[in-house]
Amino acid sequence: VIPNSPNPVQGSALGPGAEFDRIRGIMRLLGDRAAGLGDDCGLIREGDEFFALSTDVSVEQVHFRLDWIGLREVGWRATSAALSDLAAEGAEPVGLLCAVTMPSGAGEPELLELMSGVGAAAGFARAPVLGGDLSTGPVWSLAITVVGRTRAPITRVGAQPGDRLWVTGALGGARAALEAWRRSEEPSSEARERFAHPEPRLAAGRWLVRHGAHAMIDLSDGLGGDARHLAAASGVLVEIDLETLPIAAGVAAEAERLGISPGEFAAESGEDYELLVALPSRFDGADAFVQECGIGLTRIGTVGEGSRARFLSAGKEIGLKGFDHFG
Amino acid sequence: VIPNSPNPVQGSALGPGAEFDRIRGIMRLLGDRAAGLGDDCGLIREGDEFFALSTDVSVEQVHFRLDWIGLREVGWRATSAALSDLAAEGAEPVGLLCAVTMPSGAGEPELLELMSGVGAAAGFARAPVLGGDLSTGPVWSLAITVVGRTRAPITRVGAQPGDRLWVTGALGGARAALEAWRRSEEPSSEARERFAHPEPRLAAGRWLVRHGAHAMIDLSDGLGGDARHLAAASGVLVEIDLETLPIAAGVAAEAERLGISPGEFAAESGEDYELLVALPSRFDGADAFVQECGIGLTRIGTVGEGSRARFLSAGKEIGLKGFDHFG
Repeated sequence: VIPNSPNPVQGSALGPGAEFDRIRGIMRLLGDRAAGLGDDCGLIREGDEFFALSTDVSVEQVHFRLDWIGLREVGWRATSAALSDLAAEGAEPVGLLCAVTMPSGAGEPELLELMSGVGAAAGFARAPVLGGDLSTGPVWSLAITVVGRTRAPITRVGAQPGDRLWVTGALGGARAALEAWRRSEEPSSEARERFAHPEPRLAAGRWLVRHGAHAMIDLSDGLGGDARHLAAASGVLVEIDLETLPIAAGVAAEAERLGISPGEFAAESGEDYELLVALPSRFDGADAFVQECGIGLTRIGTVGEGSRARFLSAGKEIGLKGFDHFG
Repeated sequence: VIPNSPNPVQGSALGPGAEFDRIRGIMRLLGDRAAGLGDDCGLIREGDEFFALSTDVSVEQVHFRLDWIGLREVGWRATSAALSDLAAEGAEPVGLLCAVTMPSGAGEPELLELMSGVGAAAGFARAPVLGGDLSTGPVWSLAITVVGRTRAPITRVGAQPGDRLWVTGALGGARAALEAWRRSEEPSSEARERFAHPEPRLAAGRWLVRHGAHAMIDLSDGLGGDARHLAAASGVLVEIDLETLPIAAGVAAEAERLGISPGEFAAESGEDYELLVALPSRFDGADAFVQECGIGLTRIGTVGEGSRARFLSAGKEIGLKGFDHFG
C-alpha cells in the first residue's frame, strides 16, 4: 500500500493487557495499512500543521448504565472521553462526528437528550458537530470521533531519563462512583460528578506542550495501565510513588472499604480523564499552571532507564492492575 | 459558540423520512454547535484545501446478519459504505478510524477476521487505519470514520434546472440479495457480491468532479430517498424515469416475484453505494467515463424548477419509498 497521506506518522508500543494484546494483533495484521495506532491520536501532516484524530466508543452496560447516569450525561461523558485524547496530544479541537445507536423502543426525546450532552461538550470544546450517523440496535451506543489541529503534537513517545512525571487534577473519583453503584448505593456527589461529567483537559494539555512536555497520555485505562503505555512507548522506566497521588473527593472512604490505600485505589481507577505528563526536571511552572488552568498539577514520579512502570507504596513495589474493558 | 474551526461549512436540507426527521431534530437542537450536517461529509477548510469527514455505523441484525455474510465481508462493507461518502464528495481518502464493538463470546480470531476486511478496504482506498477503539457489547457493531481531502468539494447543493441526472454502475443488487435472504434462500452470486462487497466509487467521484459535476450524492438510502435529498438540498425538481435505470444482475427475477418493475425495485434498493450526479446538459463524456473508470454511467433523468423528486414509470408518476433504517 502506498498511502495517499503524504506523511503517515508511526505508531507506538503499548503496555501489557488483554485489550492491548488485541490491538497489537490488529497492528500486526494491518501492517502498512495502519499508521499511528497505539497513540492517543492518529496524525495527518498538512504543511507545518498536524490534524489529530481519535475515535472512542461508549456502550450501554459496558461503559455506563442508565440507572447510574442520564442520557445527557452519557452524551457529555462519551464526547469528553474522545476530546480527552486531543487534550493528551496538545491539540486544539476543530470538530467532531457522532455515530449513535439507539434501542428501537427509544424515541426522539431520548435521542435529543443524548445529543444535548454531545452538543454541550462540543460547545465546551468549541468544536462543532460536523457529521453523524443514526442506527437502531439492542442498546445505546455512541462512537465519537474528534478532529483537532496542532503544530507540535505530543505523543506517548519522548519521555527521557531524568524527566519528572506529573498528573493534572485528582484521581480515583470515577472508580469511587462505580464502586458505590456496584453495591447499589448512591456515590458521593463529588464522585458521581467525576464519573458523569469529566472535563477534557484541553487548555491544560496545550499549556503543558507550551511549557516543554516531553510525552503525555490521558488517563482512560487508569494510571496502572496508562503509565505502562507511556513507559512502553517511550522505552523508559517510569517510577510512581502512589503516596504522592492527588486523590479526588470521595475516594478515601471507598478505598478504606476495600482495605487498600487511597493511592492504590486511585491508580486502578479507569476513566478519570486527567493527563499524565513527562516534563524536564528543570520545569518549575506548577504554580503558574494552577493559576492559568484552574486545576492542580502534582509531581508523582520519575523517569529512568528501562522499559516498564514501577509503582511504589511505603517504599515497596506493588503490583497494580490497569483498567481493562477486556480484563 | 465561536468554533475553533475557521470556516465551518453550512449544512444541507434533507428529504422526507423518519430517520431524517430525527436528524432535523438534532440540527435544530445543536444550532450553531453543528456545521455541515445533512450532507455526505462534513468539511473543514484548510488554506485552499478541504478535509472531508464522514462517519458510518453498521450494526449486526440491523445492517447485516452473520448467517448472510462473514465478518471479513462485514468489515469491507462497513468501511466501503463510509468511503462511499468521500466518493460522493469527490474527495481523495487520507485515512480512517474504526470503533469496534464485539460480543464478549467472540475472540481474537473473529476480531482479526473483521479487521482483515477493514484493512482490505483501507488498502483499496490507499487510506491507512489511523486509529480505533475496542469494546465489548451485545452484538457486533462497527463505526467507521473516514477522512479525505479535496480542493473542490461537491455537495448535494448545486444541481441546476436544465442539468441532467446520471447514475454510476447498476442498481438493485443489494436489495435483491436481501429479499432472497429474507425468504431464507441463497441470493444469486451477483446480488450477493453487490451486498457483501460494494466498491466505493472513489475514482468515479473524482472523475465526475473534474468533468463538471454540479451536485452529487451516494446511494445509501436508495434512489427513492437520495434523489429527494438532492432535490431538497439543491432546491430543484428532480425527475427520474425508472425505465431508464441501469439494473444489476439478479434484480429482474426478484422484482418479478414482488410483481413490480425492475426499475421500481432498484429505486427502492438501499445501500447500492453508486453515485447519483447532476451534470450540465452539455456533458457528453459518458463513453470516456466508462473507459476510464471501468463502470457504467447512465442518464436517468432531468433537473427542473421546484423542490421535490418525481419518479416516472410508463410515463406516469408513482410513489416510492426510500430505504429508511427507522421506517
